[in-house]
Amino acid sequence: MMKLRGLVSSFSGFFRRRSLKRGPRIAALGGGTGLPVLLRGLKKYTSNITAIVTVADDGGSSGRLRGEFGILPPGDIRNCLVALAETETLMEKLFHYRFGQGEGLAGHSLGNLLITALADITGDFQTAIKEASHVLKVRGQVLPSTLDQVTLNAELTNGTHVFGESKVSQVDTPLKRVFLTPSFCKVVPEAVAAIRQADLILLGPGSLFTSVLPNLLVPGITTAINQSRAVKCYICNIMTQPGETTNFKASDHLSAIYNHAGIDCIDYILVNNKRIAQVNLEKYAREGARPVVVDERALQKMGVRVLRRDLLDEQELVRHDAQKLASTVLSIANTG
Amino acid sequence: MMKLRGLVSSFSGFFRRRSLKRGPRIAALGGGTGLPVLLRGLKKYTSNITAIVTVADDGGSSGRLRGEFGILPPGDIRNCLVALAETETLMEKLFHYRFGQGEGLAGHSLGNLLITALADITGDFQTAIKEASHVLKVRGQVLPSTLDQVTLNAELTNGTHVFGESKVSQVDTPLKRVFLTPSFCKVVPEAVAAIRQADLILLGPGSLFTSVLPNLLVPGITTAINQSRAVKCYICNIMTQPGETTNFKASDHLSAIYNHAGIDCIDYILVNNKRIAQVNLEKYAREGARPVVVDERALQKMGVRVLRRDLLDEQELVRHDAQKLASTVLSIANTG
Repeated sequence: MMKLRGLVSSFSGFFRRRSLKRGPRIAALGGGTGLPVLLRGLKKYTSNITAIVTVADDGGSSGRLRGEFGILPPGDIRNCLVALAETETLMEKLFHYRFGQGEGLAGHSLGNLLITALADITGDFQTAIKEASHVLKVRGQVLPSTLDQVTLNAELTNGTHVFGESKVSQVDTPLKRVFLTPSFCKVVPEAVAAIRQADLILLGPGSLFTSVLPNLLVPGITTAINQSRAVKCYICNIMTQPGETTNFKASDHLSAIYNHAGIDCIDYILVNNKRIAQVNLEKYAREGARPVVVDERALQKMGVRVLRRDLLDEQELVRHDAQKLASTVLSIANTG
Repeated sequence: MMKLRGLVSSFSGFFRRRSLKRGPRIAALGGGTGLPVLLRGLKKYTSNITAIVTVADDGGSSGRLRGEFGILPPGDIRNCLVALAETETLMEKLFHYRFGQGEGLAGHSLGNLLITALADITGDFQTAIKEASHVLKVRGQVLPSTLDQVTLNAELTNGTHVFGESKVSQVDTPLKRVFLTPSFCKVVPEAVAAIRQADLILLGPGSLFTSVLPNLLVPGITTAINQSRAVKCYICNIMTQPGETTNFKASDHLSAIYNHAGIDCIDYILVNNKRIAQVNLEKYAREGARPVVVDERALQKMGVRVLRRDLLDEQELVRHDAQKLASTVLSIANTG
């Protein structure tokens, strides 16, 4: 609470100095489809966003480019760039476009191809992201957690090892732990700086083992989070993911973060409390997914404060709503 | 000559009204690698350029996209867009980029992929070109001569028929005539308008049968050229092309235009008079190519005025020099 009061006062000073046009400094770590939802909401409130993105993906269009060009997988980065881009521009549409046909083209994201070409033209991946940010008129910045080619692997509870993100995301046996190879990858210094300077650090939402944790396994990221004076919030998934987090309660999600990354200073866990429609519950149940049980006592014992809010965007899929999520995240800063 | 005096006076009025920032109205018809060279030079003098581009290409990256997506071949259009683009921008580099590797990607031009995606996003090819022109900050406009899917075919002197532009460009037997199928394709109205309103109409440089003539075979183009009061100039190739124009003299080039398209009102033929280095002459001779012989008497009999100028850009390849070509073309307007 002390920390939050300080944050509120620091925000007031911040707004006096710079007005609302920039907003609080937020570092958001993740990947996949979860982080872009958060970013799409947040960009309306602040341009001081740094998205720190997992680059362990090895499937789909990204995986093909990674294998064929030796570049980092551009997909998660691209989705974050598009999420922070000025909306409805032609460039946003081009980055979002996916080829539906064409030999060797079908399934490729044009944005991935543009990032691949930019990396070749500019000579490095990070400059490519900066140039893409420029043409997309991105608010804030998008950074990979590392520029090294890392592979995400898992040890399962039956002792088996699984290699590669796309295989880890498809396991049936529960995961014991995930780890990167090589383990000594180099962190991107700007990501460490953004975490250090943040007012608010957000983990998730997104696949726990394949989107959130890979960032935290990059040496230097965890240390920066632990040392940062920012308020730290984990945005818990609404539904479990079959295989990856089958039957995981909220406290299991948090334990995985604590155990894997040596992080022990999460201030808040943000969970959805809006009831999910029966038709969706049944559809998800058939896939082995269910709403994450929020075991509040266990969470409190872990020293984290539980925030239950309506965060639901319920269409055919159960997802976080960008607007609800962003306004809730901002209210953490403003009200404690 | 009367026409030219009128043109000079009309230009003077034009410049008084609008200053040099727009320049004379030029319609340039062609395709391949020749037309972009001309455009790259011309854009420094006028933003009133309309490039009217052949869309009969069926080889390479363009041919693959044409076959797989059913769109018009974007390659020649793309080269003209890039030639008229603001130089050294990131977008120009992206449109120019070609993938050197990647299954199904190797050999593809990123600009072609962007035009393909734009055609899908915007719903039609012509809007795609306009949007591409916008992001490339193009001076002037680039138009296909037709939006219909046409195939370029040839009848050879031995009576054989050859179907498809890439096959026509590789024949050994001399060509008797080229023709489009379907023959009743629809001309792009903006192309007709640009020809009608032009002060100067340029044909070529470029492959005679596969870049210059296909435009003239689109019904409506020739009529517009014949009816236009513009000065008309054919920019003759410097070298013959083995197969396509083996042993063609300058008058043979012009005859092909006259005979194929029913055009009989070319005012000028612009030919190179700069001597080509012996080493290049020998290299080209080994491929069956030689400098186009300028048979001035035959040309004069055809009612055309011959302009001999240094137009040479001689590196490893013998090409037109963009700057020399553009300043010569402009001088036609200014001096008659």
